[in-house]
Amino acid sequence: MAESIERFIKEREELNNIVLEKGGKTIKRFFNLDTNAYKDGAFPAKIKESLGLVASMVLRCDDCINYHLLQSRKEGVSDEEMDEIFSIALVVGGSIVIPHLRRAYAIWEELKTIQY
Amino acid sequence: MAESIERFIKEREELNNIVLEKGGKTIKRFFNLDTNAYKDGAFPAKIKESLGLVASMVLRCDDCINYHLLQSRKEGVSDEEMDEIFSIALVVGGSIVIPHLRRAYAIWEELKTIQY
Amino acid sequence: MAESIERFIKEREELNNIVLEKGGKTIKRFFNLDTNAYKDGAFPAKIKESLGLVASMVLRCDDCINYHLLQSRKEGVSDEEMDEIFSIALVVGGSIVIPHLRRAYAIWEELKTIQY
Amino acid sequence: MAESIERFIKEREELNNIVLEKGGKTIKRFFNLDTNAYKDGAFPAKIKESLGLVASMVLRCDDCINYHLLQSRKEGVSDEEMDEIFSIALVVGGSIVIPHLRRAYAIWEELKTIQY
Amino acid sequence: MAESIERFIKEREELNNIVLEKGGKTIKRFFNLDTNAYKDGAFPAKIKESLGLVASMVLRCDDCINYHLLQSRKEGVSDEEMDEIFSIALVVGGSIVIPHLRRAYAIWEELKTIQY
Amino acid sequence: MAESIERFIKEREELNNIVLEKGGKTIKRFFNLDTNAYKDGAFPAKIKESLGLVASMVLRCDDCINYHLLQSRKEGVSDEEMDEIFSIALVVGGSIVIPHLRRAYAIWEELKTIQY
Repeated sequence: MAESIERFIKEREELNNIVLEKGGKTIKRFFNLDTNAYKDGAFPAKIKESLGLVASMVLRCDDCINYHLLQSRKEGVSDEEMDEIFSIALVVGGSIVIPHLRRAYAIWEELKTIQY
Repeated sequence: MAESIERFIKEREELNNIVLEKGGKTIKRFFNLDTNAYKDGAFPAKIKESLGLVASMVLRCDDCINYHLLQSRKEGVSDEEMDEIFSIALVVGGSIVIPHLRRAYAIWEELKTIQY
Repeated sequence: MAESIERFIKEREELNNIVLEKGGKTIKRFFNLDTNAYKDGAFPAKIKESLGLVASMVLRCDDCINYHLLQSRKEGVSDEEMDEIFSIALVVGGSIVIPHLRRAYAIWEELKTIQY
Repeated sequence: MAESIERFIKEREELNNIVLEKGGKTIKRFFNLDTNAYKDGAFPAKIKESLGLVASMVLRCDDCINYHLLQSRKEGVSDEEMDEIFSIALVVGGSIVIPHLRRAYAIWEELKTIQY
Repeated sequence: MAESIERFIKEREELNNIVLEKGGKTIKRFFNLDTNAYKDGAFPAKIKESLGLVASMVLRCDDCINYHLLQSRKEGVSDEEMDEIFSIALVVGGSIVIPHLRRAYAIWEELKTIQY
Repeated sequence: MAESIERFIKEREELNNIVLEKGGKTIKRFFNLDTNAYKDGAFPAKIKESLGLVASMVLRCDDCINYHLLQSRKEGVSDEEMDEIFSIALVVGGSIVIPHLRRAYAIWEELKTIQY
């Protein structure tokens, strides 16, 4: 059932290892900046993940969407909240977001079957 | 032969079912708006599908391209007309459209082998 | 001081009047859908404006950014929260977001000088 | 009244002269390819301009939109047809297309006041 | 080991054959223009491939990235140079480039195992 | 004559001052990363500016293009080399790059009239 998200997590980790082994200073610093941007601050991490998710959806990046869906699940985003994030992404980005929206709904359902 | 387009249609339908089951009011209304935009009007549906296709190509959305290719076939777009849609998409969008153009030509040929 | 945002509001209104006078059913329904997407729901309007803002920034749409900055100001987004929205937009969207970020910081300061 | 479109045409011509004076073989050949793509073929020039316009709108290029609006006017696109092109562009591209849509409606009205 | 890049080359060739068999004059001329743009000139082909690669990365086109990685390898781009191309692509394009960056690092390593 | 580029430089500096005064840690670190990415390394600064320029052109960011044109001029990019950068940007990004290309040619000519 939860195969596709687990395969995604595994592949992401393997490829990240190559990047962090081979990548130079700019790459490593960027990855650091990226990680820190989603930590609790004036906004809690949950809202920041929602911001990262809506940005990923309008830019139509499936891997980025999957990652922020996973983090959103961990941070306790509810179904109703997720539907509102999806709605704003769809209205802002238009029908070209739909293929990503379809996959996002399926991944979101799948995430409910996983224990952390 | 026509396996790839049929798998696309089946997956699209399955995922659409999840969206329409789980999605709220904004999502459903958007899907409605999207469907209605391509119906016969001042322009016939055939031309509207061509407009949707060229938009999908320059935005580089494979699923959107496949769907509008399928509809264009049903609406009777000819090979010569399709070549002109492809040409405008390529000139407007540039060489980054080429990977999508390659797949679109292959799907277009495949669609000729299917009966509706 | 606050001239540029007031000119933006005035021009936006004038042009919206043309769209709503001339635009057909699809255009009007879309505008409706767009307005409703940012109303209080599972997320308060303030968070929804933040979602709309980050989406507008990564898609690099100055008019959309200005509008959501204005709404964010009305909904009480703080300077610290705004800095976090800007940071996520910059990290997700990269240095091509910087010209829009520069203008957004200036508009945000300008908005503090206006009474509603 | 028709000042903004006439200024656009003049500036476009002046800048095109620089490009064609300074640009090398690839630039010149591309410009040639671009011009030929919109000539009468299996589709009449009018439909090709509509295809170019919808592509320009979803890619949010104001200069490209202005140019294709001008050509569409010359080719006899009706108000009803233009509304359908605008509707498809808005549905496909989402609310980030709206600022361009607003300006496009205004230019389209302005074009009606010009004699060729 | 080097399976994924070889499968990419084979599929690309097969699909290109369809395009060149079915495509009209505009398509063929564009392909020609595209090929010529990367030949030795004021800049050597190696630098031109680097330009094509960075453009492909910020536009997030995996097939384009793979092709320019392959050509860059043939033209003798070093690991240090590749890391700088990747760094600029990441800084300009932002974190949405990361999924493509991950795959690009893996393909770049894979290319070292192939003889031409 | 050289007014437009000088106004660009002045406005950019004024707005950057606001960003660096108001912006938090993530913003400042990103600006730092951005500056460092274009310094001499395995590739000389001149080539890195060319990479930044082509990326800015295909992403259609006028401010980014102006900045890299200015830096390219300082690093000694020749007219022939600039024409090749422009050609690759045009072929990769398509005709929607043309409005930016037109302005870039004009700015490039203007830059020749300025002493540093």
